[in-house]
Amino acid sequence: MVVFSCFSKINEGEIIIFNSSISKDATPAVVSRILKAQEKPISQIKFQKGVYHFYPDKGLEQFVYISNHCDLMVNTPFPINGLKNLTIDGQGSTFIFHGVMIPFLIDKSSNITVKNLTIDWADPFHSEGLIVGRDEKKKTFDMQISETYPYEIRNGQIHFIKPYYEHTLGQSILFDPERKAIAFNTEAYTGISTIKKNDTKAYIESIVYKYEQEERAPEYKYIGKENNLFVEELKPGLVRVHNHKKQMPPLGMILVMKGEQGFNRVSPAFRVSNTNGFNGSNINIHHAGGMGIIAENSSDLILDNFNISPSNGRMVSTTADATHFVGCSGKVVIKNSTFSNQLDDATNVHGTYQKIVDILSENQIGVRMMHHQQKGFVIGKANDTLGFVRLEDSFFPFKKVTIKNIEYINNRYQIITINEKFPGDLREGDLIENLDNYPDLLIQNCNISNNRARGVLISNPKKTVIENNFFNTEMEAILVPVESSYWFESGNAANIIIRNNVFQDCQHGGKNRGVIRFVTDDDNENIAFKNIEIINNSFKQFDNLILEISNTDKLEFTGNTITNSGTFQQLHSENPVVKVSTSKNITFKKNTYAGKVLPDNLLVAEGSEEGIKFR
Amino acid sequence: MVVFSCFSKINEGEIIIFNSSISKDATPAVVSRILKAQEKPISQIKFQKGVYHFYPDKGLEQFVYISNHCDLMVNTPFPINGLKNLTIDGQGSTFIFHGVMIPFLIDKSSNITVKNLTIDWADPFHSEGLIVGRDEKKKTFDMQISETYPYEIRNGQIHFIKPYYEHTLGQSILFDPERKAIAFNTEAYTGISTIKKNDTKAYIESIVYKYEQEERAPEYKYIGKENNLFVEELKPGLVRVHNHKKQMPPLGMILVMKGEQGFNRVSPAFRVSNTNGFNGSNINIHHAGGMGIIAENSSDLILDNFNISPSNGRMVSTTADATHFVGCSGKVVIKNSTFSNQLDDATNVHGTYQKIVDILSENQIGVRMMHHQQKGFVIGKANDTLGFVRLEDSFFPFKKVTIKNIEYINNRYQIITINEKFPGDLREGDLIENLDNYPDLLIQNCNISNNRARGVLISNPKKTVIENNFFNTEMEAILVPVESSYWFESGNAANIIIRNNVFQDCQHGGKNRGVIRFVTDDDNENIAFKNIEIINNSFKQFDNLILEISNTDKLEFTGNTITNSGTFQQLHSENPVVKVSTSKNITFKKNTYAGKVLPDNLLVAEGSEEGIKFR
Repeated sequence: MVVFSCFSKINEGEIIIFNSSISKDATPAVVSRILKAQEKPISQIKFQKGVYHFYPDKGLEQFVYISNHCDLMVNTPFPINGLKNLTIDGQGSTFIFHGVMIPFLIDKSSNITVKNLTIDWADPFHSEGLIVGRDEKKKTFDMQISETYPYEIRNGQIHFIKPYYEHTLGQSILFDPERKAIAFNTEAYTGISTIKKNDTKAYIESIVYKYEQEERAPEYKYIGKENNLFVEELKPGLVRVHNHKKQMPPLGMILVMKGEQGFNRVSPAFRVSNTNGFNGSNINIHHAGGMGIIAENSSDLILDNFNISPSNGRMVSTTADATHFVGCSGKVVIKNSTFSNQLDDATNVHGTYQKIVDILSENQIGVRMMHHQQKGFVIGKANDTLGFVRLEDSFFPFKKVTIKNIEYINNRYQIITINEKFPGDLREGDLIENLDNYPDLLIQNCNISNNRARGVLISNPKKTVIENNFFNTEMEAILVPVESSYWFESGNAANIIIRNNVFQDCQHGGKNRGVIRFVTDDDNENIAFKNIEIINNSFKQFDNLILEISNTDKLEFTGNTITNSGTFQQLHSENPVVKVSTSKNITFKKNTYAGKVLPDNLLVAEGSEEGIKFR
Repeated sequence: MVVFSCFSKINEGEIIIFNSSISKDATPAVVSRILKAQEKPISQIKFQKGVYHFYPDKGLEQFVYISNHCDLMVNTPFPINGLKNLTIDGQGSTFIFHGVMIPFLIDKSSNITVKNLTIDWADPFHSEGLIVGRDEKKKTFDMQISETYPYEIRNGQIHFIKPYYEHTLGQSILFDPERKAIAFNTEAYTGISTIKKNDTKAYIESIVYKYEQEERAPEYKYIGKENNLFVEELKPGLVRVHNHKKQMPPLGMILVMKGEQGFNRVSPAFRVSNTNGFNGSNINIHHAGGMGIIAENSSDLILDNFNISPSNGRMVSTTADATHFVGCSGKVVIKNSTFSNQLDDATNVHGTYQKIVDILSENQIGVRMMHHQQKGFVIGKANDTLGFVRLEDSFFPFKKVTIKNIEYINNRYQIITINEKFPGDLREGDLIENLDNYPDLLIQNCNISNNRARGVLISNPKKTVIENNFFNTEMEAILVPVESSYWFESGNAANIIIRNNVFQDCQHGGKNRGVIRFVTDDDNENIAFKNIEIINNSFKQFDNLILEISNTDKLEFTGNTITNSGTFQQLHSENPVVKVSTSKNITFKKNTYAGKVLPDNLLVAEGSEEGIKFR
């Protein structure tokens, strides 16, 4: 595949240069010009170097279903829709956004480049409180909240009020302000227990549904629940939180709060969909109320020097993943970038499983989107290859067909017609995945640190190279899952090369898991992962467990060096270095171990392993 | 104007007949066929007489901005979009809807007829509680809640849980189950005081906006507020409500609750927009989570034997207006219909005011939608006449121009280009209204009773005839307002004939207002209403005040009979029969008065009246 072969056409349109005359609210001028781009093509939009503010009030509106975000009517100053060969060059400018908006909303376009700019929000979508008191007996802790985070208390619940937005305490985690990173062992203290079961209800059991519903979806998640916490103000800016169930957070830590799941991802910085060719380079994203970039059903995406880091003394950069790719194909490259302090993974690459709920004819099925953050997702286009998957039998498809047509009915239900006939044993309840929409993935020369959750999540059966990166993550540095049961994020994984990376004190959040981990949601012994090479990496860890392998066929762990960092107190001393279950053809060669684990506990193997070799 | 001149073409398409084979969920079959209607035209969709259920799960989705409703992504089984000359004939069938959906979503169509069917919902969007206890001292009242209304209590707040929907106590009113109507003097007891100010906040005053925001919009309405009530369960189905501020409701009354304003209008039965020619006949609507019909920017709408009434022992039919017309033109006819037990007006006919916020050039303005229930409303089409209005000077436009083009930016902001140049004195802050989009309105032979709020609201400067109707409303039977300050519902009023109607015990809800009332939001003496005739009506009232007139020029009150019904205890004995302020050319002729008011108190006139005549 030749990437960006059309770039020679880039100069066909007008070059627009915006200057500081629009800096107080650049939105209306930018929207106005871009809306004319179909008739008066634009090749470049340049900004004279400066600081530009963007408000939502005069932004172009669009209803968006965004994977792994909320779905909402939102405004954008950059409605890049159906455009080709466009470069947006900030020339070193800073764009400050206000409230709920999506800076770059790129859809059905090709060869779009955005470069040389910094993105920030005037007011963050999360809030921070310094822990200044704790009482284990009374189950209270006290937070000092600065004027950066206006709040009010309604019936004992704290609401952080921003321009155009508000959030509750909701999802939370501790940051250590000295390290400016997730606090060591935050799992012992967070998340703060905001919700509990309620015990007063009548006749609820009489409510039955004809069709499957999703209980965890935002519209249902509070049924049977109520608030667990009670917040009181001791004096303005100082609040006491009562009734937390875990340990009270340590003094001096900062509690980061972002509101309840299902409601708190409304403003990613970049949303790229149905687009072939996106180039983001020399970009700094200091904040977003969601991900740095979420790309869906797109191909040939290059992020180079595309950095996520916090500003203005905030602990947090983006409030969700730095980058995230769903159903993307062609080349996906993430290189020379820093992903720090975001509240979720540095990247997550996967497809979607959709569930067959109606077999309508010999070539037509009705499918249901299973997770509310996949609502509205269209699984492919004409002639894409669909696989039928029955996970209890295999993680690999039992039959492949091609799409003829998809009729969008609603965000949960679509009708798919195929070019062939269905296999005779197709059943309602079987899953589909798009086998074409996985990428040739490269993650290279990146620094992934100080963030909540994982480094990279890979559900990619095509090809993945992860090399020359630095990881310092509070959960797994690299997680290779089959997220079938909750997230319905498709993809077994194959052909993954992990080489020349440094893993520094990963899993310091406190979970008892490996630094690199292969795992399936489904409790069976089928192979999900194939052809994995973990080569010449350096693990500098404070704890034992390095590698967790399950459901894998052919994994080579070669030339790696494992040392003890001593950075933090060890948490799980009972662990071996490697855990293997239900896997085969696992080979360990030429590795160096200088950690704490005794030789007879280096590896624990369970299940039906065969062919574990040490050479 | 010849109405429905195209009806001769009605037989051009296929006649579709659905039968009971689809009755368990008729949605997918109906959607599937209607989606093909552009290629395979349909002239009629008939249903074999029966009961048909419609679920939202496989309904066609559309994001809708609906005037005077919530804006939402919603599903419909009848996506009538861009169709012509279509008749849907239920042939006496009953359609039962489940959850949040819009039965008939009719847009950009012409000559659409729906007839011979009954619409109901399996589960209502409101809830009812029988008052079985009250304690004025402790400020509590007790409600018995039947299994029709499943509920749970979360942190002292009651949530009524339905399939696909839930609501809080929110907006409420009392019904008298013996009369099956709004309880006499409900104003003394309701609405229940759900919200109060909160007193714990920090730094909120630092939040400032560059542009105007609407504080009462759903996204802002809880800032500075918290719940006032506390609800406890005494035993399953019996709950005690604490802390109500008005009088405790009387025993035996039924409290109807529908959740908070801004969140509780999600499922009107009919939504008709941008459509020329709609005929609804022999329709019974027993319920809807919103209005019976909301029509916008449409023309030539005939409702004949289009009835709103409750079913299944419910106190309530539709949870909002029976019918409502915004920016509609041509003939609007409402005849031979019953509008009973709905939770808002029987009809409301008006346009919209939009505020000029940017004068962008000599022929281009940016306008803002002022009320959140007008979000997304487009004020007109090319060549419609726009009036510029400055309400402090006059209720009538100071300049008329015509629309060249409207560019939709977002739900609050649009850019309007006109064919002419603006007047030199046009100012930001001036309002616009569409002077063409008012109808020739006829309301005839209708029974309007037992409902919350008004009978008819008329903001129509064209022509209105209201004749041979029966009114028994808890507020005004006929309200002629200029709703400029809160609702931004445009229209002064002229050429209104009110004749041969019976007004029976209107205003029994307890408000101190006239049965027929002319009023402006703006506190000035300008004329808003012209050429009004109130002729040969019969007023059978329990209280004094019949007619309130303000800002009116030329009103004739002739041949009317006023008697005392004695139905209820008099509430406002100090009132005269007629109040007149800031009006002129008001004439009273040949009326018969047999009420309680002494002759020297029949009329109170304030302000700058001239020409009040009795003949």
